[in-house]
Parts: sequence; structure tokens; C-alpha cells
Amino acid sequence: MENKLKELKTILADVDDLQRAASVLNWDQQANMPAAAAEARGYQMGTLSRIAHETFTDEKVGKLLEALKPAAAEMEPDSDDACLIKVTAREYKRSTKVPPEMVAEKAQLTAVGNQAWQEARAKSDFPLFQPHMEKIVDWSKRFAELFAPYDHIYDPLLDGYEPGMKTAEVQAIFDGLKGPQSELIHAIAEKPQVDDSFLHLDFDEQKQWDFGVEAVTQIGYDWKRGREDKVTHPFSTNLGYGDQRITTRVYDDFFNTHLFATLHEAGHALYEQGIGPELARTPLYGGTSLAIHESQSRLWENLVGRSHQFWTFNYPRLQEFFPSQFGNVDLESFYKGINKVEPSFIRVEADEATYNLHIMLRMELEIELLEGKLAVKDLPEVWNERFNQYLGVTPPDDAEGVLQDVHWSFGLYGYFSTYALGNLISVQIWEAVKKDLPDLEDLMAAGKFSDLHKWLREKIYRHGSKFEPQELVQRVTGSKIDGTPYLRYLQSKFGEIYGL
Amino acid sequence: MENKLKELKTILADVDDLQRAASVLNWDQQANMPAAAAEARGYQMGTLSRIAHETFTDEKVGKLLEALKPAAAEMEPDSDDACLIKVTAREYKRSTKVPPEMVAEKAQLTAVGNQAWQEARAKSDFPLFQPHMEKIVDWSKRFAELFAPYDHIYDPLLDGYEPGMKTAEVQAIFDGLKGPQSELIHAIAEKPQVDDSFLHLDFDEQKQWDFGVEAVTQIGYDWKRGREDKVTHPFSTNLGYGDQRITTRVYDDFFNTHLFATLHEAGHALYEQGIGPELARTPLYGGTSLAIHESQSRLWENLVGRSHQFWTFNYPRLQEFFPSQFGNVDLESFYKGINKVEPSFIRVEADEATYNLHIMLRMELEIELLEGKLAVKDLPEVWNERFNQYLGVTPPDDAEGVLQDVHWSFGLYGYFSTYALGNLISVQIWEAVKKDLPDLEDLMAAGKFSDLHKWLREKIYRHGSKFEPQELVQRVTGSKIDGTPYLRYLQSKFGEIYGL
Repeated sequence: MENKLKELKTILADVDDLQRAASVLNWDQQANMPAAAAEARGYQMGTLSRIAHETFTDEKVGKLLEALKPAAAEMEPDSDDACLIKVTAREYKRSTKVPPEMVAEKAQLTAVGNQAWQEARAKSDFPLFQPHMEKIVDWSKRFAELFAPYDHIYDPLLDGYEPGMKTAEVQAIFDGLKGPQSELIHAIAEKPQVDDSFLHLDFDEQKQWDFGVEAVTQIGYDWKRGREDKVTHPFSTNLGYGDQRITTRVYDDFFNTHLFATLHEAGHALYEQGIGPELARTPLYGGTSLAIHESQSRLWENLVGRSHQFWTFNYPRLQEFFPSQFGNVDLESFYKGINKVEPSFIRVEADEATYNLHIMLRMELEIELLEGKLAVKDLPEVWNERFNQYLGVTPPDDAEGVLQDVHWSFGLYGYFSTYALGNLISVQIWEAVKKDLPDLEDLMAAGKFSDLHKWLREKIYRHGSKFEPQELVQRVTGSKIDGTPYLRYLQSKFGEIYGL
Repeated sequence: MENKLKELKTILADVDDLQRAASVLNWDQQANMPAAAAEARGYQMGTLSRIAHETFTDEKVGKLLEALKPAAAEMEPDSDDACLIKVTAREYKRSTKVPPEMVAEKAQLTAVGNQAWQEARAKSDFPLFQPHMEKIVDWSKRFAELFAPYDHIYDPLLDGYEPGMKTAEVQAIFDGLKGPQSELIHAIAEKPQVDDSFLHLDFDEQKQWDFGVEAVTQIGYDWKRGREDKVTHPFSTNLGYGDQRITTRVYDDFFNTHLFATLHEAGHALYEQGIGPELARTPLYGGTSLAIHESQSRLWENLVGRSHQFWTFNYPRLQEFFPSQFGNVDLESFYKGINKVEPSFIRVEADEATYNLHIMLRMELEIELLEGKLAVKDLPEVWNERFNQYLGVTPPDDAEGVLQDVHWSFGLYGYFSTYALGNLISVQIWEAVKKDLPDLEDLMAAGKFSDLHKWLREKIYRHGSKFEPQELVQRVTGSKIDGTPYLRYLQSKFGEIYGL
């Protein structure tokens, strides 16, 4: 058994090396690469991914997993080895279901589809993208059928991002949230709007960068095991043990973008930096799901970065960086300004109170598309109608409406819901932290984040992807994923800001 | 046949993708990577190299090459396909000679050996490195034996860097050069030394960088297909079509380092940028040998960058960048300063007139080590003795003597000679260029390098590694590699500068 386990780990280490190498190539493409190399880089990344996939789905892996079953059943279930075998078996099963031709077909459809989407968005012309999206949706249906029987056609798609989660669970959670969150927004809309004009002044890019570096250093980002670079679309990436990088962007005419994107990506990176080094070069060396990952980026971005306590400590320092912009703005006004609620068209710019509604809309539409209840050609109309219903505003055109996000052109169906789940989980975890650290708010107001960071590392980060998302949330918070705490948080925070 | 060739090309494209990916990882390691990731990156690069090697040496490749032999014999010998088959067969034969255990053994010996070398150099304590070097030399002997029978034990090592070259050829060339080059240095030593104190002032790093960017732009480096970054040890790298990067370093107390290193690396990059795009993702997509490559870096660094004409055009501009340093230094003095000849201990800092002697010393010692005529333990003594004989000075310690270069700790025997060959070839090519472009010097003095660049691209760059080095030199210059033109160049240039 020892030998077989060792053999399995050797193969998995190769797969991990290939995948991390592809991540280095991707990071480089976003941060450094000359545009002229796009085609060559595409080949390189394609080859690495293909060989990683072939290596992982080789029948040798299946046989080793089969042979290790009896031994795994005897192991302590929470042990690294037991979890490694469990997670590898799950991923192996999922990966081997899809015939190579379908993988190639998707690569082809989405490469062309993404091109078409780019043009369609630039011209705000949905029909340019429509035939491509039809093919991609059709592919997604056929993909789901590979996993039949299922409870819901959306399940196999969701499962790729949230292992073990069911569509019905997510729908139940969202159903309980949609009404009250919509009501909250309408109630806010009737109150006088807060002023945030001071956030739209001229901000020196280098000063923003420097302040951002101080902020992520404060929350515990380890610069010895990472770095920060500028890109068009910020992301964070784990390039192997000792190398978890963040990327960001800076706008000189709006303060929020850089700082909150940076805290967001640093939140993702703290998670990956906190994974136990003993899990390196295995499939367990990564966050456990997109929703759990997002819970950490949002926790640091919002529950910390948009909190009153964070700015109690940091606002005087920020005023030193930007005296002409913030010198005459008091802490309360600043706090309200960065937490302004206003229905807007673009998801990535949405505030905490409206964000989830963007997601719910997308998930509903995805489900209807997959169920065949909605035709792709009708999408723009339905989008605008439903957008108005949830957010009270109607996009001026498809570029700011149905065409705004890249995801559908890449075939990422079942993906959006993880963003909203992440928000919900972040507050569930926050409540659990506060039980263990009753003076959390005082610590934050004193600029001390190490107890919080330590708690998260101990309870969540170090486990990597040993546990499925629902299981992890249950262990950490004592209940499954639940929208109530998030709703409570929104009502309390924004009730206070808007005097509801 | 068409199908078999296509199949071969598909495998070779995979190998190329894997190797380029490893180069991206290496570039990133030198330019960006946090030190904490060294072990993880080592694994990743090891895995990529191993899979590339396994893929290339798979017996499928051997069978395809065998099957393609008759078709190749019918092809136009200079055609891309004929050269592809020829070069692939040569590399396949070489790669499959070495058993995987020996490859692994070398990786192990040199990993440990390099560690030991670093400590030995830091402490200037050769015995710390001695046992490791003994093992690495022993490995190199066993490696050479795999290629027996040979004319000379050094041949199989040299062949890895200069395909087709024989030790006897190199020795004959060097033998003709050693005496006259030594005499030249002694003659110079008797003349009054030129002044270069103005090169050792304080130079703003950003200004040096900016001037370097102008210079490499002038000689034709295509920034749309590359970029420049700072590293500890400058290099250039080809990361696939459309991406040939240069790296450099900047010292604030010495002018030469940054500019000439940058021109040197840009020279390498011009070569790679000029390779025909149709050769991308094949083994032909790279310079043909280290010596030919070095001939291009040295051509742009020395024959252009250290020429009177280059500075006729560029010196006024340089004076604008550094008025306090160069404002009162006239062009003649500057030209003499950057061409100062002075025997020194460190190869990488050596001037044009002394450089080759450093190389010849190393090649002699390598050969004696491999022939068993010299024991590793006696190396420091012999080094110092012979160094004094050639260069007239004796290193103060082993750190500045036998331990100065990293190469031997990496098992790079047979490698150094390519540096000197590159110098010789650069002048042979220069003479050939001047036949076709009689007004070359006027063009340079007017800041015009495009005709030179075009000539090199046409005659050398575009062919990638289609032709062996001797064959290429013969085609381009009408004769084989020859030291006489280089000697003539040195005597003329330094005779004038030093009034010999």
C-alpha cells in the first residue's frame, strides 16, 4: 500500500508541476508578455494543460485509486492521505467522464466564442455573439448529460466549482435572500444618498499603490512568498509553495478600485499562503472551492476593508497620503462614502447590498437556458426586464447588460453563484470568529489583524481542499451555508449608514 | 510520408512548448520570483525538462526518423523539412545515448556541487568544492565514453554546444592566436595607459536604463516582441514566437556594465527575433550554436557598441544624459576609455584584447582534466601559474581565480571555448558584411543600423539552427572559423588606440 500511495503521489506531483507551470505562464501573460506572443503562449499553455490532463486521467491513476480503496477505508478520515485519496478519486471520476473530443470541442467553441463576445461587447451587438453562445450552451447541456442521472441539469456544472453542492440547496438559499435584499435596496433608495464625491478626485497612482502595500502588509500578506503587479483584470495565483502572487489595477480618478481590488486579491492569497506546506504538490494544495475562496477575499475586502474599525485605525494614515482629497473629510463621511449603495449595471462595480442580486439574476437565467425554458436569442430582453425588477434600473444597452461579463463566452456556466455564496459564507465565518475573538472589533480598530488571520489559518486555510465546501462551513460555523447572517449583516450595517 | 512528417512535427511542437515553458519559468525565477519558491520552482522545471526529454527520446521519434530517411534524401538539402529531419536525427541520437540514470545523477551532482561552489567561492576555499568537482569531472568522462570511439575525449562535450566541431579544430585555431594575442597585450602594457576615470563616477540608474533603451532600439531590437528587465546575471531568452526578452543589470558607479551588457543581450535577442517564423515550435527555432550566438552578441556589443562610429553618432546624446560626467570629456578620450586594455582577474570584466586568453586557459585545463593529466586538487596552483604566464598577473585568491565562474559546478565542460570562438566569428562576419556594405562605417556614424541588421537577418538569423556552425560560417564568410581576422582587428584597433 505504501508503495502504491507513493506511486500515486509521484504522478500527482507531476500533474501539479504542470498545472503550476501553466499558471506561471498565465501570470506572465497577464503581467508581462508582449501581445505578439499570444498565439505561441496559447500553444504552450494548451500543451501543458493537455499533458497534465492526460497524466491525471491515465488509467494507471484509476488502478492505483482502486487498489488504495481498502487502505483508505482504514485511515483516519481527516488525515492528509485519506483526504488525498478521496479528493483525487472524486476529481478522477469527474475528469474521466468527459471524452477528449468534447474537451477539444469546448476549447475550440470558446476560443471562437470569446473572440465573438469581444466584438459583440465592443459594438453592443448581441446577435454577433448569439450563435456562439447557442453552441456553448448546447455543449454545456451535453456535458451535463454525461453525468446523468442527476437531480438537476445544473448540478454537474455547479459541482465543478462547488464539489458536493446541489442546485436545490443554492436555490433555497437564494430564494430566502432575494426578497429581503431587494426590499433593503428599495428602502435605501428612499433615503438621502450619501456623498462620495471625494472618492472621485485625482489620486496619484504611486501613492495609491504605496497605501495598498501598507494595507495588505497589515492584514498579513507575506511578501517573502509573493509579489504584486499591475494587470488589466486583477487576480491572485498560487504558483507553488512559497509563491502566491497578487495583481491589481490603479485608476487615477477613483479611489475605491485599487484598494479594494488589492484587499480582495490579498484575501485570496492569504488563503493560499496559509495552506499546510505538507500538502504542496498534491491536489489538496489549493482552496477547497470557489465559494470558500470568495468568502475569504470578501471577508478581507468587505468585512475588514469596508469596516468602521479598519478605518478608525487607517484613516489618519490615508489622510496623510491624500491631504488635499481627504483632509477635510471626516471619518464618518469617508466610511459612508466607501459604503454607498446604488443600483448599477456592472456587477464588478456593485456595492455589498446590491451585488448578490446581480448573481441571482445570472443563475436564474443560466438554469432556464439549460432547462430549455429560455432561448439564447431572447436573453437580452429577459435580462433587461428582470434586471429592472431586481435592481430598479434598466441597462442602456447590451454592453452594459447581458454582454458585460466574459464568463459565458468561456463556457463558465454554474460559476457565478459561487460569488454570492462567498458573500454569505464570509459573514457566517465572521460570526464564528467573533464568538472566539470577542474583542475582534477593538483589535481591528487598533490595526491588529494577526489573531483574525491566525484563526482563519487554523480553521480554514491550512486544510487546503481536504474538505468539501458544505462540510468545511459546517465544521467552522456549526451550520451549513445559510443566507440569514449575511442578511442580518446588510440590514444592520446599511440600516445604520442610511438611518433605516 | 506527409503524415509521418506531420506526426513528427506534432511531437516536436510539444517538446518545444515544454522547453519554452521551462524558459518562462526560468526567466520568471531570475526576474520576479520570491526566493522562498526556489524549491517548488526547481521541481516544476525538473518535471517540464524530464517530460520534454522523455517525449523527445521516445522510440516513436526514432521510428519516425527512420521511416523519413528515404524521403529526406530526396528533399532539397537546404529546405526546412530536410534540415528539420537532419537536426532532429542528430539531437535524437545524442539524447538517446545517455541513460536516464546518468541524467539524474548529473542533476544530483551539480545541484549539490553548485551549493558547494557557492560556499567555496564565498570563502575562497577551493578544497570545499574539490570533492564535488572531482565527481563532476568523473561524470563528464563517463559521459564522453558513451560516445566512444572519438578522436578526442573533449569532442563529445564540445559537440553539445558546437555541433560538428572537433577539439583539434578549436585547438589549431587557438594555438595560432595565443602567442600573438599575448604579445599584443605585452606591447600595450609598455605604452602609457588611457584614462577611464570618467567611467567610474556616479551614474543615475534610471538615466542609464533610458539611454540603454534608446541604444537597443537604434540597433533594431523589436520591443513589440520583447521586453527588458533587471536581474543579477544578465541573459536573453526566447520564450516562443513573438517573445524574445533581454535582461540587464545597472551599477551606479561604473558606466560600462549596463550599456554593454544590454547591447550584448540585445545582440542575442536580435538573432532570435530574426529567425523565420515558419521554424517556430521546431528544434530549428533557435540559434545554431553557442559560438554563432556569441558572435552576434559580441558583434553588437563590441564591433558596433565599442566602435568609433557608434559613438560619433551617440556620444553627443550621451553627453546630454550625463553632462557632469561627460561634458568635459571629448569623443576621442571617451572612445579610448571604453576600450581600455588591462589584464584583470575576472573573465566577465575582461576587455576585447585579453578576453580570449581567459578562455584558452580554461579550455586547456578542461582538456587536461579530462585526459587525466591534471588532478582537480592541483587546479588552483596550475590556474595561478598559467594565468600569470598568459596575462602577466596572479589572482590574489581562488575566489578571483579558479573559483570565479559557476560553469564547472554545473558540469558545463566544453562550453567556455564557444565564447572565444564567438569573438573570432564576429570579426569574420564583420569583414563579410563590409564587402557587401562598403559604406557600413558611414552608416553607423549616421546612426543607421538597419542595413547591417537586414544583412545579418538574411544571411544568418532567419536560418535558425538549420546549418551547423562551421557550415554556416563557410556559407557566410567563404571560409571556416579562423582566428586571423580577429587578430588583425585587435592589432589595428588597439594599435591605433595605444599608438603601437
